[in-house]
Amino acid sequence: MTQTGQASAPERVEIVEVGPRDGLQNDPTLIDTGVKLEFIHRLIEAGVKRMEAASFVNPKLVPAMADGDAVMAGVPRDRGVTYIGLALNERGLRRAIDAGCDEINFVMVASEGFGRANQNATPEDTADLLDRVAILAHDARVPLSATISVAFGDPFDGEVDVNRVAELARRAAAAGVSEIALGDTIGAASPWDVRRAVEAVRAAAPDPRLRLHFHNTRNTALANIYAALEAGVTIIDASAGGIGGCPFAPRATGNVATEDVVYMLSRGGVETGIDLDRMIETARWLETVALRHPVASMLSKAGGFPPRAS
Amino acid sequence: MTQTGQASAPERVEIVEVGPRDGLQNDPTLIDTGVKLEFIHRLIEAGVKRMEAASFVNPKLVPAMADGDAVMAGVPRDRGVTYIGLALNERGLRRAIDAGCDEINFVMVASEGFGRANQNATPEDTADLLDRVAILAHDARVPLSATISVAFGDPFDGEVDVNRVAELARRAAAAGVSEIALGDTIGAASPWDVRRAVEAVRAAAPDPRLRLHFHNTRNTALANIYAALEAGVTIIDASAGGIGGCPFAPRATGNVATEDVVYMLSRGGVETGIDLDRMIETARWLETVALRHPVASMLSKAGGFPPRAS
Repeated sequence: MTQTGQASAPERVEIVEVGPRDGLQNDPTLIDTGVKLEFIHRLIEAGVKRMEAASFVNPKLVPAMADGDAVMAGVPRDRGVTYIGLALNERGLRRAIDAGCDEINFVMVASEGFGRANQNATPEDTADLLDRVAILAHDARVPLSATISVAFGDPFDGEVDVNRVAELARRAAAAGVSEIALGDTIGAASPWDVRRAVEAVRAAAPDPRLRLHFHNTRNTALANIYAALEAGVTIIDASAGGIGGCPFAPRATGNVATEDVVYMLSRGGVETGIDLDRMIETARWLETVALRHPVASMLSKAGGFPPRAS
Repeated sequence: MTQTGQASAPERVEIVEVGPRDGLQNDPTLIDTGVKLEFIHRLIEAGVKRMEAASFVNPKLVPAMADGDAVMAGVPRDRGVTYIGLALNERGLRRAIDAGCDEINFVMVASEGFGRANQNATPEDTADLLDRVAILAHDARVPLSATISVAFGDPFDGEVDVNRVAELARRAAAAGVSEIALGDTIGAASPWDVRRAVEAVRAAAPDPRLRLHFHNTRNTALANIYAALEAGVTIIDASAGGIGGCPFAPRATGNVATEDVVYMLSRGGVETGIDLDRMIETARWLETVALRHPVASMLSKAGGFPPRAS
């Protein structure tokens, strides 16, 4: 029989909303800049304080994100919200900074197969590139985070060694990033994997903050978040409505839904600053107005508990 | 920051397959006895050793379960499988024993609202009834378990006090049940709730084995199972395909899917005796042949990881 850990929850968890970037990037529905800005506005009304708002990658490869400059020109600046822009190289970083992003997120890959398919780079390449990108970010005084993608499994290569993830985290810390995110890009992780990875990355890179990014493709995302919290992590990515899908399994779901995360955390007494009802409303707006297709979140179907007196 | 618990998983977890009873009972598709028996056969081929096979309640109220006798007459007896029959009173218990059930499961309710709607009984009524049912089961030398339903929240009354659940568990233990199941009938629990409830029930009823029954209505089922395992629980209910729905939220999902549970556990190195691929195949058979509607499980859409060489 296993021993019990500490049953108490952390007081507060920071949710990084990734819907406007990671969520919309893979969605079959292309939406225009005005609808993206309405989405961002609704997220802010629901209490989001930090979000991935745009990416600055090749617009020919990711047409859904071609309007990153226009999105950043239109986001509200008086709401105390931090906007993260995604960049994969020095050119992207410069564009993101010029567009007014408050933070830059860079993506490393933990294995060859996904690296080749996603950004035509090996894990080593991405670590070397991060060194150069980090110098520019430092000179511009813009905080930089690094996501280690496919950290829990690669759709092409299969298993990913946790020591390799830890080594990339060491490289990221050496480059001076303020935060490292571990990405379960294909939703393969179990909560035991999460505990192991968090411990290995903490040992290899004790200084940067640690953020976890889960997909619910195999239904394990909330279990993984719970395990991450137990391991001391307090920063979690999530996507309103669970939008984003999984390019490697067309019928499957991708990003864990923000409202599902908020429900679990609020039932555990964990403060997120996010209003569950407003987030559910945003998911339903995505489903019926903005994207016009069902979204993956469960709270938008089941509603919260206990039921509100209306 | 919370402290880490033990990261290691239990060696083995017993999965009680509830699809043939709890799954089919609420399904909009009525299937005949032959198809039920094929379902049971497929479950056994996938490795299931213990299942809820039928219920012996008023057939006018639950027409989908009216053929409990015929189902039990047709199940294979040479495969080392234990068949559980559900009963809500002495008459049901006698019918279940006569039909050849190896074990009986009785249902207590943890709050008034659900008790009234589900079986027209208060929590006290169900505890008193269990006393009488337990005498019959004891005389017949048939093992008896008690499920405490709505243990984590009631769709009518809202919050359910964990002390009330513990008191019902004490009553069940005093009646001599060999196993107590805590049912999250509406999928409201968080993993922190699970830890608290398991600890409270253990303290009140140390002798019976403890089984946990989760619905994934609010996406928390696998997190709750993980928390239950951490608290030392090693018996978990699940339903092939996640069939069963949620009568209180028509668009929402009900029972956690067996294949989703098996995936998480097998990634954590926990043995269940169940073959993931065969269980996924069974879920797809339910979806395309037996029930002819989509099922809630995620593994049947995403497939396992790492991908099998074919």
